[in-house]
Amino acid sequence: MSATTTNATATTAGNAAGRYPLLSRIDSPADLRALAVGQLPQVCSDIREFLINSLSKNPGHFASSMGAVELTVALHYVFNTPYDRIVWDVGHQAYGHKILTGRRDRFHTNRKLNGLSGFPNPDESEYDTFSAGHASNSISAALGMAVATEMNTDEPRRNIVAVIGDASIGGGLAFEGLNNAANTPNNLLIILNDNDMSIDDNVGSLHRYLAQITTSKRYNNLRFKLYSILRKAHLVSDRGRGSILRFNNSLKALLSRQQNIFEGLNIRYFGPVDGHDIAGLVKVLGDIKDMTGPKILHIKTTKGKGFEAAEQDPATWHAPGKFNPESGERPASIPGPHPPKYQDVFGQTLLELAKENKKITGITAAMLSGTSLSIMREKLPSRVFDVGISEEHAVTFAGGLAKDGLRPYVAIYSAFLQRAYDQIINDVALQRLPVVFCIDRAGLVGEDGATHHGVFDLAYMRAIPGMTVAAPSSEEELRDLLYTSSLGVIEGPMAIRYPRGCGQKAEWQKAMKRLPVGQGVEVEVSDNADVALLSIGTMLSASVEAVRLAADHGVTADLYDMRFLKPLDEEILRKVASKGVRAIVTVEDGARTGGFGSAVMEWMADNGYNIPVKRIGIPDRFVAQGSVAELHELCGLDAASIAKALVDAAKQ
Amino acid sequence: MSATTTNATATTAGNAAGRYPLLSRIDSPADLRALAVGQLPQVCSDIREFLINSLSKNPGHFASSMGAVELTVALHYVFNTPYDRIVWDVGHQAYGHKILTGRRDRFHTNRKLNGLSGFPNPDESEYDTFSAGHASNSISAALGMAVATEMNTDEPRRNIVAVIGDASIGGGLAFEGLNNAANTPNNLLIILNDNDMSIDDNVGSLHRYLAQITTSKRYNNLRFKLYSILRKAHLVSDRGRGSILRFNNSLKALLSRQQNIFEGLNIRYFGPVDGHDIAGLVKVLGDIKDMTGPKILHIKTTKGKGFEAAEQDPATWHAPGKFNPESGERPASIPGPHPPKYQDVFGQTLLELAKENKKITGITAAMLSGTSLSIMREKLPSRVFDVGISEEHAVTFAGGLAKDGLRPYVAIYSAFLQRAYDQIINDVALQRLPVVFCIDRAGLVGEDGATHHGVFDLAYMRAIPGMTVAAPSSEEELRDLLYTSSLGVIEGPMAIRYPRGCGQKAEWQKAMKRLPVGQGVEVEVSDNADVALLSIGTMLSASVEAVRLAADHGVTADLYDMRFLKPLDEEILRKVASKGVRAIVTVEDGARTGGFGSAVMEWMADNGYNIPVKRIGIPDRFVAQGSVAELHELCGLDAASIAKALVDAAKQ
Repeated sequence: MSATTTNATATTAGNAAGRYPLLSRIDSPADLRALAVGQLPQVCSDIREFLINSLSKNPGHFASSMGAVELTVALHYVFNTPYDRIVWDVGHQAYGHKILTGRRDRFHTNRKLNGLSGFPNPDESEYDTFSAGHASNSISAALGMAVATEMNTDEPRRNIVAVIGDASIGGGLAFEGLNNAANTPNNLLIILNDNDMSIDDNVGSLHRYLAQITTSKRYNNLRFKLYSILRKAHLVSDRGRGSILRFNNSLKALLSRQQNIFEGLNIRYFGPVDGHDIAGLVKVLGDIKDMTGPKILHIKTTKGKGFEAAEQDPATWHAPGKFNPESGERPASIPGPHPPKYQDVFGQTLLELAKENKKITGITAAMLSGTSLSIMREKLPSRVFDVGISEEHAVTFAGGLAKDGLRPYVAIYSAFLQRAYDQIINDVALQRLPVVFCIDRAGLVGEDGATHHGVFDLAYMRAIPGMTVAAPSSEEELRDLLYTSSLGVIEGPMAIRYPRGCGQKAEWQKAMKRLPVGQGVEVEVSDNADVALLSIGTMLSASVEAVRLAADHGVTADLYDMRFLKPLDEEILRKVASKGVRAIVTVEDGARTGGFGSAVMEWMADNGYNIPVKRIGIPDRFVAQGSVAELHELCGLDAASIAKALVDAAKQ
Repeated sequence: MSATTTNATATTAGNAAGRYPLLSRIDSPADLRALAVGQLPQVCSDIREFLINSLSKNPGHFASSMGAVELTVALHYVFNTPYDRIVWDVGHQAYGHKILTGRRDRFHTNRKLNGLSGFPNPDESEYDTFSAGHASNSISAALGMAVATEMNTDEPRRNIVAVIGDASIGGGLAFEGLNNAANTPNNLLIILNDNDMSIDDNVGSLHRYLAQITTSKRYNNLRFKLYSILRKAHLVSDRGRGSILRFNNSLKALLSRQQNIFEGLNIRYFGPVDGHDIAGLVKVLGDIKDMTGPKILHIKTTKGKGFEAAEQDPATWHAPGKFNPESGERPASIPGPHPPKYQDVFGQTLLELAKENKKITGITAAMLSGTSLSIMREKLPSRVFDVGISEEHAVTFAGGLAKDGLRPYVAIYSAFLQRAYDQIINDVALQRLPVVFCIDRAGLVGEDGATHHGVFDLAYMRAIPGMTVAAPSSEEELRDLLYTSSLGVIEGPMAIRYPRGCGQKAEWQKAMKRLPVGQGVEVEVSDNADVALLSIGTMLSASVEAVRLAADHGVTADLYDMRFLKPLDEEILRKVASKGVRAIVTVEDGARTGGFGSAVMEWMADNGYNIPVKRIGIPDRFVAQGSVAELHELCGLDAASIAKALVDAAKQ
């Protein structure tokens, strides 16, 4: 076994003629399968070079795909894709897969508007078998396919492979899948791609457990060899599950070693094997692919493999942005004061608050650096809990902390918090526990696309009784909301949602002030307004601009920053409804269906006002990737579109 | 060890004077703790007698609590409740706990309006530490408390105990909790109450695994004894985790036996022990309660223990209804034709459809009999999948089945489907997979109370792009909707929601017909209507009555059964909006916030109609238990309240 096949590529430069000698001839996996095994190291080398060249210019997820090159090649070489199905979990590691499956020429459009999706996407290719983006779903989805192929007896049997990382397999959904995998006849193969990393450090006992398993390698190898020998001698068969189990158990007794967790769940375990040994992978996959019954192959890989800077610092190189393909240097950030990211405002502010209030704790679910909760973790490590990919647990755990007097702040991306909807309702809101949900990446997030947009939170949080819901319009307001949430003046839970990316004010670290709960702000009000514009969250800046643009068209609009979705500012609403504007326009970076605009409409109807309400928000469809600005324009959330809505509304 | 303490009570009758000799003197756990260990069997016997007498008259969850009597007594005897915390999972088994903690005299109000909640409820008692009702949350919540007590250094340390069943521990949330339990300093004790049962049969590999663990009892006992000896001799200490781990590992090597899953996750494992040996339980709990670090105690119990009929058929006796406390006889159902339960209409109809269409499969998550998917399971066992307490997996698994050509029907209660919100969005809707969600127990469910009401589904399903959402108004309509969903005429997923309990028509098994998607029904329309009433789902019968009552008050109302929430019937809406009624009244058995009424309002606004819409639905608060009729009246969903709303609306 050798791991030397992948080290030569990092410094390979330009030279277009000789570039990608084998990869340039692979337009589909069928072309790959026509090659000899001995040529595969070159294919791997070509893919790495391609990834380095492409991603250094058009940024994306880098280290995961670099680590999965041999696995990707081996899977498409051994399995008859797309008839056989590969289900990638999350899909950060699936760029090699995209490149091998007919999308090499379009890969420069990765994550761009109308380009390739950054994750496997069944709408894009028949090789992308299932939606990926939210962790831990691959085993359940693949098990469904594995059961379906057994039931579809009029079609040839498919092989089904789930590829899951060592962090994703710690998610509850993955465990549920594992726990059910042995319950029905199926030939599911689960590949555990173990690089000892999540986006941040991996956490949880399973992770430590996987590290220990490596020490049993000798035992596992011996067992597999013995098994192969006995199988060839027809002393055990794959069809008879009983004999295999007996074999395993006897062998275990014979060797007097640990049973592992997967075997405890009745899933055959193979490994760990070197995930960068392409020939070895091809062999072991060939050996086990037709075995019936669920099985897991544990491979060890290095995140960032083949690019030294990434191997050294895989967390930074998870999504490094642009970089120099030869030196690995990344452009320095522009010096001088500039607006901070919202996540940093959150992280820095929570640290400030936590220093003053020892009850404050921070919780996240594998988004430590993504939410900048890492800032508090660095200074107050014992009060920050990164529970790994476990949004459900994160929320219920926070409920337990709150029950006994702590003040937990749960920092999770909007789209991933959907995983914990039931826990928010029952384990927090029903009990009026003072958990603060800091919902990052709310609204359209841009290049990560449909699975990552945070569009439902306003609608689903609003329906929960007793939940206070706020959305700051600026960095300062985020700070003030966090401060207010820490004062114990709000009964029960609170949600504060803010977008991905930067704010607008370089000078944001001002003294914090308490905001009145359920009170918005008059931004611009005149006596003769034609319409009123109610904005929530960071849509305010486009709204300000829209009011200016509408004025150019002779339409005067009052503008309010509502700040709170729940409770709504009834004083503002009453004022707006009674002053005689022709219509109310609402704007939100969230689903039009059931969101902020609907809340305004409900209030008007409940209070006997009969004034037209026009809602601007994300339409009732899934929105693909693109820059935030492009997507806002597409969805009518840019200043020009809002202005047009104001002008139209004034004409009613 | 003896299990004879609990068998004598089933036939104990009346005789008020001698009844409950010890229990009658226990008004709080402090009274219990004043007793000698030797008196505890009598306490257990008293509790069982009390449960039998009480539940035979006022039905509730029976078999689980009967099986947990010794555990309950031992916990309150050994731990300093309520300062120490017991977190019950689900809480079906917590009646004994309620009786011992000052609620004996109110227990006859169990599950009734303004009475005791059928589940642990922190609003009811300080002994009820956390909301229960949705499975698998106890470990995470208790871990939060266990971490909080370590952080709250200015208060004495609390002992924290989670009690979880062998079915609940298979849920993903429980696994996430286990996986994180060893990550922080804490003294969490997890008690695995293993009765080899869920409400229905337990499923999943973990379940089989737990059965096998029993065979290691000798090893576990030996290890625990050795550990106790070494601890007393100060050869190992509890504070130094290292030495204990070394001890465990050495012992394992010494005994050359299997490591178990919990130990793999770095949680010390003790057991299995007899959960009906009260003295043994008191001893083992005393021995392990002050050990630091997370630990699990595995106890084996018999569901229904002490009442023979329940021991023999624990599934039926999970919630048996009224019964004869001496004979165990249950009242026979009234003979003759009578309206079916909605769940049976679903179960029977799906079987009929599945016989014709071999692509149809049924999936549930430990609700096989509760959803009546058991009807199909009995006839077509290979096409029904009960995945255990794993709503998330159930949905993603169904997505995988649908991906490869099957037509999965996912039958889950409305409140529990909240667990799978993210999976519905990403693993089904985003991919337009033809999964049909059969949402049982939608709306107010009655006696099970706040955690079980299905109030959010209309709001959260409606926000999902591409989801068709329907609610039948009758048994026939449910059949027709199921039939329509099976025809392949609807692109993407569909949700059909229907209530707990019986319909109204004894003659329901008619030939099925295809219903036009997004089309409602005119029920009563006149030329001179004052108002229009739009009803969805089974609110139709109260609506018909309300229209009659309103007529008595001189108000004429048109009535429409909308049938589809999404897409809405635009033809009806346009007609209603243009015909000059004074207002539209909507009625739904779901949250007013963001639900059906809001959808109607949004449509009106989007289409330029400016007509008042009055929404009747469940108000924005958590609703406790009571009969469905009582709760409908409380929430203004009864015919009289709807009629009043019609009359009020006509006056506008």
